[in-house]
Amino acid sequence: MTTWFNETLYKGFRQSHEIKKVLFEGKSKYQKVKVFESGRFGRVLALDGVVQCTEGDEFVYHEMLTHLPILAHGNVQSVLIVGGGDGGILEEVLKHKSIKRVTMVEIDGAVIEVAKKYLPKICGKAFSDKRTSLVVGDGAAWVRDTAERYDLVIVDRPDPVGPATVLFSKAFYDNCRRVMKPGAILVAQNGVPHMQGPELTDAIKLFQKIWAHSGTYLAVVPTYVCGFMSMTWACDRDITDVDPRKVFDRFDKAMLPKLNYYNPEIHFGAFALPNFVARLLPAPKAQKKAAAKKTR
Amino acid sequence: MTTWFNETLYKGFRQSHEIKKVLFEGKSKYQKVKVFESGRFGRVLALDGVVQCTEGDEFVYHEMLTHLPILAHGNVQSVLIVGGGDGGILEEVLKHKSIKRVTMVEIDGAVIEVAKKYLPKICGKAFSDKRTSLVVGDGAAWVRDTAERYDLVIVDRPDPVGPATVLFSKAFYDNCRRVMKPGAILVAQNGVPHMQGPELTDAIKLFQKIWAHSGTYLAVVPTYVCGFMSMTWACDRDITDVDPRKVFDRFDKAMLPKLNYYNPEIHFGAFALPNFVARLLPAPKAQKKAAAKKTR
Repeated sequence: MTTWFNETLYKGFRQSHEIKKVLFEGKSKYQKVKVFESGRFGRVLALDGVVQCTEGDEFVYHEMLTHLPILAHGNVQSVLIVGGGDGGILEEVLKHKSIKRVTMVEIDGAVIEVAKKYLPKICGKAFSDKRTSLVVGDGAAWVRDTAERYDLVIVDRPDPVGPATVLFSKAFYDNCRRVMKPGAILVAQNGVPHMQGPELTDAIKLFQKIWAHSGTYLAVVPTYVCGFMSMTWACDRDITDVDPRKVFDRFDKAMLPKLNYYNPEIHFGAFALPNFVARLLPAPKAQKKAAAKKTR
Repeated sequence: MTTWFNETLYKGFRQSHEIKKVLFEGKSKYQKVKVFESGRFGRVLALDGVVQCTEGDEFVYHEMLTHLPILAHGNVQSVLIVGGGDGGILEEVLKHKSIKRVTMVEIDGAVIEVAKKYLPKICGKAFSDKRTSLVVGDGAAWVRDTAERYDLVIVDRPDPVGPATVLFSKAFYDNCRRVMKPGAILVAQNGVPHMQGPELTDAIKLFQKIWAHSGTYLAVVPTYVCGFMSMTWACDRDITDVDPRKVFDRFDKAMLPKLNYYNPEIHFGAFALPNFVARLLPAPKAQKKAAAKKTR
């Protein structure tokens, strides 16, 4: 008889993975942690019953939340990762030889230990890279207190429930901006718009209060079920306005090892939004100003 | 207690919809037909246990398999739909006032009757439109025998199992070409590349034997689980090579009612392929010819 891991993130819909073998199951200070060998997607990491990443499709999320902002920026040397305990983001970032230092602040050290032991295909040797500074601690406190500054901030957080809720607040984003150098980019995951539309809307509303430019691009992670995943960005510059030739050149120069999702074509394609996603975005700042002028 | 509809299209992975109410359940000459009110996606049509469309996300598949080729072509007046029993494709096609006649050939009349009765939100009044010629019969035989010719052929078929298998053969595609006017476009669904890669590869291999140009574009249908869905195309012209301004102009002129997915930006964004999808495509004809010359 097949044993199933049933994820019921959404009422009335669920995905299920066949459990071939449970590799780890425990409770950390913050959450229930489980790793199992699945029938279809290799090893799966679940936190509090929700799939966080799988060997079979982690490349989508990790490539698109790293290479796109890095190549849109053009000169990223320092990166802050908030969360990201599985090490997948860290591993992708370190593929860029031009990047000199990466600080990763993950609140749950147990997740890091589990990843090192059971998910080497996802984290590689990223945790022992000389450029990595690993902080087991509160990402919200880090951005409030640190004296360091970064070219890129990647918020690799789960959904806004449990310990991650604070990572969706205006205070947190304000502090993210505090640690960002001029021209630095912030990126974050903001859920699956088909099911979690308000989460996207709320994030962009906050971004617009803090940054001159913000928006979302999309990627499709098979086991983040129910369609596109929203990756939101914020910056003092418009990152959609980069000359495509520059991105192609930067990509060539980066000489990254074989990727499974990201390429310069999808870099630009990812900013094209289906209508139902575009409608979730509040009007851009410039448009609001123009409208305000008109009514004067 | 919740009653679940479990779809096990892929070994080791399944999606489940809460069944709030079964509206229809029966067996036609060809397949098991079921319509139920789901917990999350409105009414769901399932054939032989596989989700075909839901009220909650049918717009993705139906808009992207119609408006994209229609606006890439620029002067579609006649359309052939092979399959499409739920009427969703037909309804989308008829939104274009410039289209004069649509032939729809569906093998299973029972599906049409079920759609008319239980899925009016999907088929609208498409079946009674004056421009519609409805044929209950074998699509493969139709393209072999008919004297009619079309500007666009849409193959709206399920996966290559059961009665639909013939719709994946070279003989079928040869006959599709037979009924296509010069410059006409063929589009078809070719599954979810993350799970059904060979299906995409095989289709393009056949297309390359028959047409000068072919390829795939992508859309994301939440309940066609496991990532992007491949929509393949074939034509004597390269449909990716249209001046974007033309597509924007055609879109404006079409004055379509409110759409939920398609827009001219996503038209072009949909052709950007993640690496794992691009690798499934055989090299284009031109490239093969060049390679052959080199080795002479």
